[in-house]
Amino acid sequence: MLEPSHASYLKNLVGEGNFYDDSPHLSAYAYDATKERYLPDGVIFARDEHDISQILAYCNMHKIIVVPRGAGSGFTGGALSVRGGLILSLERMDQILEIDEKNLIARVQPGVINKHFQEVVEKRGLFYPPDPASQDQSTLGGNVSENAGGMRAAKYGITKDYVMALRAVLPNGDIIRAGKKTIKDVAGFNVAGILIASEGCLAVITEMTLKLLAKPKLRQSAMGVFNSIKEAMEAVYKSMASGVTPVAMEFLDNLTIKAVEQRFNKGLPIGAGAILITQVDGSVPEQISWQLQEIEKHFRENGCVDFKIAQTPQEEENLWFSRRNASQSISVYGKKKLNEDVTVPRASLPALLEEVGRISVEYGFAIPCFGHTGDGNVHVNVMVANPSDRAQLEKGHQAMEAIFKVAIALEGTLSGEHGIGLSKAKFMPLAFNESEMALFRRIKQAFDPNNILNPFKMGL
Amino acid sequence: MLEPSHASYLKNLVGEGNFYDDSPHLSAYAYDATKERYLPDGVIFARDEHDISQILAYCNMHKIIVVPRGAGSGFTGGALSVRGGLILSLERMDQILEIDEKNLIARVQPGVINKHFQEVVEKRGLFYPPDPASQDQSTLGGNVSENAGGMRAAKYGITKDYVMALRAVLPNGDIIRAGKKTIKDVAGFNVAGILIASEGCLAVITEMTLKLLAKPKLRQSAMGVFNSIKEAMEAVYKSMASGVTPVAMEFLDNLTIKAVEQRFNKGLPIGAGAILITQVDGSVPEQISWQLQEIEKHFRENGCVDFKIAQTPQEEENLWFSRRNASQSISVYGKKKLNEDVTVPRASLPALLEEVGRISVEYGFAIPCFGHTGDGNVHVNVMVANPSDRAQLEKGHQAMEAIFKVAIALEGTLSGEHGIGLSKAKFMPLAFNESEMALFRRIKQAFDPNNILNPFKMGL
Repeated sequence: MLEPSHASYLKNLVGEGNFYDDSPHLSAYAYDATKERYLPDGVIFARDEHDISQILAYCNMHKIIVVPRGAGSGFTGGALSVRGGLILSLERMDQILEIDEKNLIARVQPGVINKHFQEVVEKRGLFYPPDPASQDQSTLGGNVSENAGGMRAAKYGITKDYVMALRAVLPNGDIIRAGKKTIKDVAGFNVAGILIASEGCLAVITEMTLKLLAKPKLRQSAMGVFNSIKEAMEAVYKSMASGVTPVAMEFLDNLTIKAVEQRFNKGLPIGAGAILITQVDGSVPEQISWQLQEIEKHFRENGCVDFKIAQTPQEEENLWFSRRNASQSISVYGKKKLNEDVTVPRASLPALLEEVGRISVEYGFAIPCFGHTGDGNVHVNVMVANPSDRAQLEKGHQAMEAIFKVAIALEGTLSGEHGIGLSKAKFMPLAFNESEMALFRRIKQAFDPNNILNPFKMGL
Repeated sequence: MLEPSHASYLKNLVGEGNFYDDSPHLSAYAYDATKERYLPDGVIFARDEHDISQILAYCNMHKIIVVPRGAGSGFTGGALSVRGGLILSLERMDQILEIDEKNLIARVQPGVINKHFQEVVEKRGLFYPPDPASQDQSTLGGNVSENAGGMRAAKYGITKDYVMALRAVLPNGDIIRAGKKTIKDVAGFNVAGILIASEGCLAVITEMTLKLLAKPKLRQSAMGVFNSIKEAMEAVYKSMASGVTPVAMEFLDNLTIKAVEQRFNKGLPIGAGAILITQVDGSVPEQISWQLQEIEKHFRENGCVDFKIAQTPQEEENLWFSRRNASQSISVYGKKKLNEDVTVPRASLPALLEEVGRISVEYGFAIPCFGHTGDGNVHVNVMVANPSDRAQLEKGHQAMEAIFKVAIALEGTLSGEHGIGLSKAKFMPLAFNESEMALFRRIKQAFDPNNILNPFKMGL
């Protein structure tokens, strides 16, 4: 619980409607997409950068923990206040401040919802590629703090590739700017670079300058059906090494296909080892057809038994239906989904999926997989039929740990999209040695010497 | 001078031919492209990462300054040992360790020359876009440390967009890895992000994992002639806002055109206010012609009086001749060139160039300009006719400072490509406030508490 003097100072600072420490508000800000619950001591809504500077300066002086929060849609507990303190909500700082069509740049506040931003810029013929699956809820501030990915990363990269400049407040209340509205800027250390993906542990981001593209004029989608997952995974990296860069190259394995079919009855090929769904874009029709021809060629050379190109928007929608409904459908295999986002170099996908198959047998869990194979990012789901059986749940976690070890051995990463937060903190030693962990702690210290900002995350 | 015990320890560590403290060697490593001279106390050539770890651990313990050095082709003194100590040359660590065609990735040592690397990957149908003007000499390690740009940045971005992972040695000798061979990786702080552009002040980079692209199959170049520089600058940002992304969009102003013509007699339009030279690339011919049509349209709508498309490789070579020879030709205007690389958002180019014109008149110097307008990066050259006249030289520096102030006021940066190093250190307060400078110092401290690694640079 906050000391009454702190509560009254903070309430006075931001005004009546922007500070709460009553039970309903604390409960409402105790959760995120992990479904774990940690009650904070207070919830404060920042109205502007000045508020944030004042809040942090005060909390730093009194050593009050502050956990910045966007939409709370994260999968790793980054927005949870594990040891009390203040939830600093950025959701009311939700303005698109500027869309600069001349320079293809936008300036936004952290609370803007990703999907809303995409729609606004697309109406002006512009394009913001990062499209995390949480795009309907997640905020751009959260996206930057977690370095969110998405389906279009295969061609367009991830959030960090669109951050040109940031404004942020340090834990001591100092307001800093990092980066510029220019493609080239090499003055000073790349502070924006280290704030991206820092999970709210180094500073509170108050404004972002984002790169936009012109919206591609044309796009088309296609689907390939494969007998085996190995062939599909080989088709992924071989077609991408050939010089085609599809916007997306997504896959569903056999378990996922069957789950979607069971729920939605769409006539999917339930005997297939895997399907790949891809999209290409461009400015002229010949560019589209060349890319689809190349992809079909590489698919067919690698065991594709059926290749369909969507000819209408409705057909395109149908092709993507199974992918969009994969995540919810696999619940047919178990009540609890241990859901991780390991990522490996594309050419290691066949080996990764083979090992996941082996682990599925060894530990006795259904492990449906789907995801962004175009960038090597696979959503691996260990399905626990009866999570109230603690031994079974523990075994599920062990299966997931085995998968992490495989990913690291294949030169992959613990997390392609979700971050570390709480959920993966204990796996950090699998991926980082003591020198690297010590450096992370010194960086944390350089920004946040009193350790008030989102502490106890990332294994620090 | 190094204490004899240090010299003999270091010589013993790396072997006879890899350590020198004789006068010819010290002289040979006392300079860089700034033409300033600072004698180091010793020059040591690392053979591998293990050497570097041992050297740094020893120097850290004995507080001996270490200045990492690639090819010494930098324009801001980053590789100069301003207060003695050791030059740590990476030029013998020059191996391309791996070209992974399946994942479109290469692993290289820091001493590999940029141009050599480009040629090797292009022979395999691959493509490494960053092409700094120093590409014949500069090393990939230097490119990463300075975050080098180049002509192709308008479409393909700069060095940081191609760095996937690094290995590096911290000043205490610890060996760290940062980043992964995957497009998506959000585990731990983005240490690779802050090492890029850190000018050798935070760690010594020992290995780089770089992203490659498939080499574009087709390309074509064109040139537009404009009566006024203002119209040319407007044509730049308007054509790029239209949705075309040319590989390069380079410009020469009237003074530069006249200088090249005076030296080479190529029949250039010496009455023109500016010329723009552009290149587009793609996979199918229709994509090339669509882009050139769009560019021609926007050029003509903005005062382009002549538009030529190169139809043969020879014609392409001719179009680019003037740009490639701009830098050396402008010496006709003065013995000493104060040469800076300010960068502004593209739509501010007309205002920047107008202000440069005003400063040229006010201070009485010819200031020919050329460069990478596609990304807002202009090479501004204050030509000092008689640099031995100290008053005149000082006035030249004042003119340059006035230009920096204009760039900053237009939301631009002190440096798009060259970095800060020594040369621009005194201008850091124009661009950064005290909170930002203090953060830079704390970051430096987190990596290098004894301040042994390339100290006294970047205004720290």
